[in-house]
Amino acid sequence: MGLTIGVDVGGTKVAAGVVDDDGAIVEKVRRPTPSTDPEETAHVIAEVVDLLAGKYPDVSAVGLGTAGFVDEDRSTVLFAPNLAWRDEPIKKKVEGLVGLPVVVENDGNATAWGESRYGAGRGQDFMVCITLGTGIGGGIIVDGELNRGRFGIGAEFGHFRVVPDGRRCGCGNRGCWEQYASGNALVHEARDLARVAPAMAGRLLELGEGSPERIHGPQITQAAREGDAAALECFKTVAQWTGQGLADLSAILDPGAFVIGGGLSEAGDLLLDPVRDAFGAALTGRGHRPLPDIRIAELGPAAGIVGAADLARI
Amino acid sequence: MGLTIGVDVGGTKVAAGVVDDDGAIVEKVRRPTPSTDPEETAHVIAEVVDLLAGKYPDVSAVGLGTAGFVDEDRSTVLFAPNLAWRDEPIKKKVEGLVGLPVVVENDGNATAWGESRYGAGRGQDFMVCITLGTGIGGGIIVDGELNRGRFGIGAEFGHFRVVPDGRRCGCGNRGCWEQYASGNALVHEARDLARVAPAMAGRLLELGEGSPERIHGPQITQAAREGDAAALECFKTVAQWTGQGLADLSAILDPGAFVIGGGLSEAGDLLLDPVRDAFGAALTGRGHRPLPDIRIAELGPAAGIVGAADLARI
Amino acid sequence: MGLTIGVDVGGTKVAAGVVDDDGAIVEKVRRPTPSTDPEETAHVIAEVVDLLAGKYPDVSAVGLGTAGFVDEDRSTVLFAPNLAWRDEPIKKKVEGLVGLPVVVENDGNATAWGESRYGAGRGQDFMVCITLGTGIGGGIIVDGELNRGRFGIGAEFGHFRVVPDGRRCGCGNRGCWEQYASGNALVHEARDLARVAPAMAGRLLELGEGSPERIHGPQITQAAREGDAAALECFKTVAQWTGQGLADLSAILDPGAFVIGGGLSEAGDLLLDPVRDAFGAALTGRGHRPLPDIRIAELGPAAGIVGAADLARI
Amino acid sequence: MGLTIGVDVGGTKVAAGVVDDDGAIVEKVRRPTPSTDPEETAHVIAEVVDLLAGKYPDVSAVGLGTAGFVDEDRSTVLFAPNLAWRDEPIKKKVEGLVGLPVVVENDGNATAWGESRYGAGRGQDFMVCITLGTGIGGGIIVDGELNRGRFGIGAEFGHFRVVPDGRRCGCGNRGCWEQYASGNALVHEARDLARVAPAMAGRLLELGEGSPERIHGPQITQAAREGDAAALECFKTVAQWTGQGLADLSAILDPGAFVIGGGLSEAGDLLLDPVRDAFGAALTGRGHRPLPDIRIAELGPAAGIVGAADLARI
Repeated sequence: MGLTIGVDVGGTKVAAGVVDDDGAIVEKVRRPTPSTDPEETAHVIAEVVDLLAGKYPDVSAVGLGTAGFVDEDRSTVLFAPNLAWRDEPIKKKVEGLVGLPVVVENDGNATAWGESRYGAGRGQDFMVCITLGTGIGGGIIVDGELNRGRFGIGAEFGHFRVVPDGRRCGCGNRGCWEQYASGNALVHEARDLARVAPAMAGRLLELGEGSPERIHGPQITQAAREGDAAALECFKTVAQWTGQGLADLSAILDPGAFVIGGGLSEAGDLLLDPVRDAFGAALTGRGHRPLPDIRIAELGPAAGIVGAADLARI
Repeated sequence: MGLTIGVDVGGTKVAAGVVDDDGAIVEKVRRPTPSTDPEETAHVIAEVVDLLAGKYPDVSAVGLGTAGFVDEDRSTVLFAPNLAWRDEPIKKKVEGLVGLPVVVENDGNATAWGESRYGAGRGQDFMVCITLGTGIGGGIIVDGELNRGRFGIGAEFGHFRVVPDGRRCGCGNRGCWEQYASGNALVHEARDLARVAPAMAGRLLELGEGSPERIHGPQITQAAREGDAAALECFKTVAQWTGQGLADLSAILDPGAFVIGGGLSEAGDLLLDPVRDAFGAALTGRGHRPLPDIRIAELGPAAGIVGAADLARI
Repeated sequence: MGLTIGVDVGGTKVAAGVVDDDGAIVEKVRRPTPSTDPEETAHVIAEVVDLLAGKYPDVSAVGLGTAGFVDEDRSTVLFAPNLAWRDEPIKKKVEGLVGLPVVVENDGNATAWGESRYGAGRGQDFMVCITLGTGIGGGIIVDGELNRGRFGIGAEFGHFRVVPDGRRCGCGNRGCWEQYASGNALVHEARDLARVAPAMAGRLLELGEGSPERIHGPQITQAAREGDAAALECFKTVAQWTGQGLADLSAILDPGAFVIGGGLSEAGDLLLDPVRDAFGAALTGRGHRPLPDIRIAELGPAAGIVGAADLARI
Repeated sequence: MGLTIGVDVGGTKVAAGVVDDDGAIVEKVRRPTPSTDPEETAHVIAEVVDLLAGKYPDVSAVGLGTAGFVDEDRSTVLFAPNLAWRDEPIKKKVEGLVGLPVVVENDGNATAWGESRYGAGRGQDFMVCITLGTGIGGGIIVDGELNRGRFGIGAEFGHFRVVPDGRRCGCGNRGCWEQYASGNALVHEARDLARVAPAMAGRLLELGEGSPERIHGPQITQAAREGDAAALECFKTVAQWTGQGLADLSAILDPGAFVIGGGLSEAGDLLLDPVRDAFGAALTGRGHRPLPDIRIAELGPAAGIVGAADLARI
């Protein structure tokens, strides 16, 4: 068993890579997701697969990690608003186009699997991976296996409710976790501060060229690294919601490790230190139970490609 | 394999039964839990096991389902406030006393396993069992196996937080789910109503002989069955919190079925109808995903005995 | 002008006193409120007035301070659930029975007026009086005058909402201030603690003879005075809600002093110190504005009689 | 007495008018607020007063309505972040420059007084005026007089807390009313919706030229008038918080009328209908008490000038 291809299908880009059985990416390619026509997306996927498979004829299978709800047979995407897919039989379509066996998986699950096999989750049979980016994604490893749930739709951590009647979420509900603990939540926090208390947010506004709307994650991280009190407070707020949510997940799942990925995780200890504090203060039964590790992910954005490629191998 | 013994070790009583491999209880016995001396509890367990094993010499193993945190080796109870146990090596103690192999499991897990094998969860490989009593207990079945978590302490559903800075919980935190969705929560709701708005709670107070403190679960269920508006409102409030919490668990775990047990589940459809409504209104991605069944448990309070006995068999 | 009679008409007792123009009570009498028949209440009021007026023939007028909504003409009680009165023309009735001019006022307003004229509010032209007992009552002094509002129903402080979807209140709403900051709220807090965390509430339970339901205000105060951590935490929680509410009232009314009465105020500095801390931390514009005094009331339960008697004088 | 000048001193502009004793503005002038130098602001005020007083030599006094905390002597602005003033002796400065008596009042109070004397509050001795704009301002009329509070800082309605640990406010606290019920809150609501659920907010985004940041109040009002469901939902959300807050103020102040001004009030019945519904559902004691009128202000942005001018007359 040798090479497989992993493809990460997101709302803005399709990224693919040839992956060997050590989880190393041999070669990578990316294309923009064709936003005008959801039908076209299968063709773009086929195109990048053909390109890579042409150069690496040993490739034996393809794993697609895609946004949205993937069905229990790992064949059809039930619902992916960012890709404008509904009941899309993507496995069959791509297999027809590329002539290789295809496995489909939710991108959060693919990422979790990648980290579990080759990243920060190695050696952890009970692991929860959380990606903090635009929203919250991730996956659950139980006894060394990916726990997809009965219908393949589990691990939608971003949408358990943490505040009754709280902030509006794109899913149609209010108070979802990802509205409080994600890269977007950090930006939301900083812009809010800049709008209602510009005097406190001087450095953030400076980095945002005077406009709250131009404050993005990297500026907040930079200001926090400089010791700016406002930026640190934004991190602390988001870290408290994150730590509380991890404590909630520990009550339910009791993992041995949390692996934190996504754009927000690039802040490293700036995020992790207050997350650990908040987790420790919120965990039920604290003092009477072993604690899970809380770690930053190791594979970065490539985790989805690596995980999808590995899932195609199994 | 034939007979095993299951023991349900709770804060007030020790209940044991000989169980055959169809999950039927052949004979049952119970003793009060010796509250004065936690050391004594092992002796009471040994006593009921000896009694039953004496009559059924084919018994090959013993399963203990016990309140509290059970360690990953299923040997030691790390922390069980109701039994006054800390780091109690109960497997070794009971094995020494009865001369049979002993397996220890958390009682919520034992109940979930019992329902999964012989009750309302039969045929469901991905199932979540929730018991609504004094608090909330339960267990998680993933791919036909009990998911105990890394340290054996998972499925503490009662303690994920649903209201920031909410009602005080016995675990030391505030806003835990079991303070809003449990048998106790129903009673709390009804007594509160009777205290602050006695005119609205006339029937409830009548059934409680005039005192809010004498309103218990059965009275509330009775009044609700009679159509009393106040009692129905109490059920609706608790059902909304229950349904919301199941929706949260679906976002995380995506089970094929929820099995609802515990004292509150005896209200049947009075509880289940509004729970299903609330669940349907709260589930993220509703309309784009298959729905789990929500069912009442079938084995009643014996589920823990049956489950523990079966776990001893594996 | 010389002597007048003040009557405090509550749900359990009718208390009356002859008051001189220094606000001193010359003689006092009380009767139980006839709960069986609301009609009877006017007769009991007349009875105590006649008794006192018989001994003090100089008495020139009667002031009634009564629970409930009093209309703008200070004649009719629109709604008083504790007295079972609806649109009760109590001024006319009592005048007919006693042959003296009668003025009717809400009991919270009477208390505020009493404290304003002869108690802790002397010399304060802008004062808010808050009584913390079963619920919250009180009154508002603006520019030396009682501010009754347009319809006579103002100063129902207990029923502004402090928690969306919060604790149920007897008024039919949820989240009213008096559910968080009152004598009852303190008891609620302590009993909750005793129920869910009996180990923490050992001293409280001891004083309550082992039962949460037998923990009352005086026991909590006693335990707090002994330094009991659980009792102190209950006080702190209630004091935080109280201080926050006073800060809210300062944002709206900007009084020069708050006078705190009612049963809870008997705890003195045990209550007042954390209330002042919470107020100072919550006040909008803190650091840029003069602070009001926060003081304990001086007249005790007699404030209502003194205030009602004085209002009859005007 | 005849003509006086009213000046409305805000963070962006200084607007002044000559007002006759019928509350009619005879002539008006405005200048930008000099943002670079707070000292300059007194000169700009003097400049517009001189200009008007030169043309109307009968002018006998000047009223300044200014943002910020005005002291009890109506002479000094204690704190006005938008004007960068701290302990600014503005009365003395302007009197020295213009040679006319000057009265200083908070702009919300001036507006309330204007509406009370010549606008929607005419004939209402107990009135609360609320302006819903960037934040919430307003004033309280008690028994026909402006209730300024003990230190002149009352009626800061925008900063009583309606959500514990809620949205961050520019005052440094969280959960202030103006974060939920104001023109800014409406815009916040609409932009949030457009960001997290662009599909639902199609018409709003269209009017905002595709960008959430370009959705402003007028666009939301326009969409709501067209019947757009998303815009109507935004209005409903803000109206619910507004109506709840008015109910809270009724519990405390029991006014005969609420007069609603500020930019948001331009939406008229679109706002008022759901505000009245929410008020009616939230008022404590509803059904047992007379209801206040809830009306739109009549004088528009000029209310502050008219009120300040009239206060100079007294």
